[in-house]
Amino acid sequence: MASQEYPKTAANTVKRYGNDRASYDYKTIHTIINTCPVLHVSFADPTNPFPAVLPMIGCTGDFTNPSADPNTLPQNIYIHGYVSSRLMKTGSSPDSEEGLPITIAATHLDGLVLALTPNHCSCNFRSAIAFGYATLVTDEAEKTWAMEKITNNMLPTRWENSRIPPTQTEMTSTSILRVKISSASAKVRAGGPGEDRADLKDEALKKRVWTGVVPVWMQWGEPMPGPENKVDEVPGYIEGWRMRANQEGRVEAFKAIESE
Amino acid sequence: MASQEYPKTAANTVKRYGNDRASYDYKTIHTIINTCPVLHVSFADPTNPFPAVLPMIGCTGDFTNPSADPNTLPQNIYIHGYVSSRLMKTGSSPDSEEGLPITIAATHLDGLVLALTPNHCSCNFRSAIAFGYATLVTDEAEKTWAMEKITNNMLPTRWENSRIPPTQTEMTSTSILRVKISSASAKVRAGGPGEDRADLKDEALKKRVWTGVVPVWMQWGEPMPGPENKVDEVPGYIEGWRMRANQEGRVEAFKAIESE
Repeated sequence: MASQEYPKTAANTVKRYGNDRASYDYKTIHTIINTCPVLHVSFADPTNPFPAVLPMIGCTGDFTNPSADPNTLPQNIYIHGYVSSRLMKTGSSPDSEEGLPITIAATHLDGLVLALTPNHCSCNFRSAIAFGYATLVTDEAEKTWAMEKITNNMLPTRWENSRIPPTQTEMTSTSILRVKISSASAKVRAGGPGEDRADLKDEALKKRVWTGVVPVWMQWGEPMPGPENKVDEVPGYIEGWRMRANQEGRVEAFKAIESE
Repeated sequence: MASQEYPKTAANTVKRYGNDRASYDYKTIHTIINTCPVLHVSFADPTNPFPAVLPMIGCTGDFTNPSADPNTLPQNIYIHGYVSSRLMKTGSSPDSEEGLPITIAATHLDGLVLALTPNHCSCNFRSAIAFGYATLVTDEAEKTWAMEKITNNMLPTRWENSRIPPTQTEMTSTSILRVKISSASAKVRAGGPGEDRADLKDEALKKRVWTGVVPVWMQWGEPMPGPENKVDEVPGYIEGWRMRANQEGRVEAFKAIESE
């Protein structure tokens, strides 16, 4: 279904193992981004040969069509955080409407894949890369909407369960970037170890070296109240989210081993 | 101890919260990189306004001084994986000895910090950014040494507990990059929530909104043998590493809450 995919361009076409592991559909890409607690955001720094990279938080969304289903429609990526205004200006393309060209990477590690020889060892992972143009969100309604979206993407219903709306000072001191995606791709490695054919015939080797997958996921531990906390019990929306996230992470990691 | 730090340059000096959260010392930076199972590697693509970003694995090391203590001496970063040879050439600086300018990011998420208002919410994290010049390792001895180092950095003693040395085909098909670090920095956020002064005086708000930290770490699950595995019990070096990694991740996440 070509219409539910990001276009393939020179930037996003996956070259290594592209046939087996790449996908371009909205659902896969948006899900990887929205379940990844840290995004790595990269952009050129004109004063420097090295790209800048910042760990940031964010999620997909579309303010002009807020009920758009991210499984079937393209999205923007909203990012919480600060990119120097100098870069926002100098990095802008000649058409200054377009904004700063940035690359957003989201990676989930699902397992360590152990083969008979280190050269066949691998990782199970799901990663997404999105290329797009970032602009600062200045409209207050869009900014508040994006803050709510990013907060609740991290911890569902936290926004309405805390002190809102933001004060004017908070609005001014918080930056939100809207990234218009021009292309994006996902890459997924799943399954067990692949082996060298000669190694598989070596029975002594196979009796000596353990092969398989060690699954891995993000584990959220018991919430620790801060010194100012006055709520005795950890609320259900926090515990529910934590249990669900741990369970889903675990299930994904084990499921990856079985699928190919 | 200035001699045990990477130099501060325009590229690596941390601007946001630089005084509280930044450090430049070898030990902090190398530890974050070597305990991070996925590194995000970024470099300019001359055909494209967007930097390329690849998730890769790697660790620090110094082949010319293999016993160099990473806590007190600078290191290279060795990365396992493939960067198009076109880029390795076109990206090289005029002095072609220097190699491709790349940025390596390593991020550990330690917790979700929940304040009374979403605008004071934050994350506990440890991140390192290294800037350097990447060249392809062509010397066979250095390449094998780096493969061993990267394998054992991920899972200690896995190298010697599997089929080695690599075959000639494996040597040819595996690429290792050596990144000479020109500057690097680390940024660490720890502690509990910071609050707005007005919110702290609002007792009704404090009775309604739970505040504190939800710690998080990478959890390695039970190893799942592959279809070709003939070793009945999971070896001790795998289980020992797994238990240690889970314990250390958990301890780091809880320790971060207590420190400021």
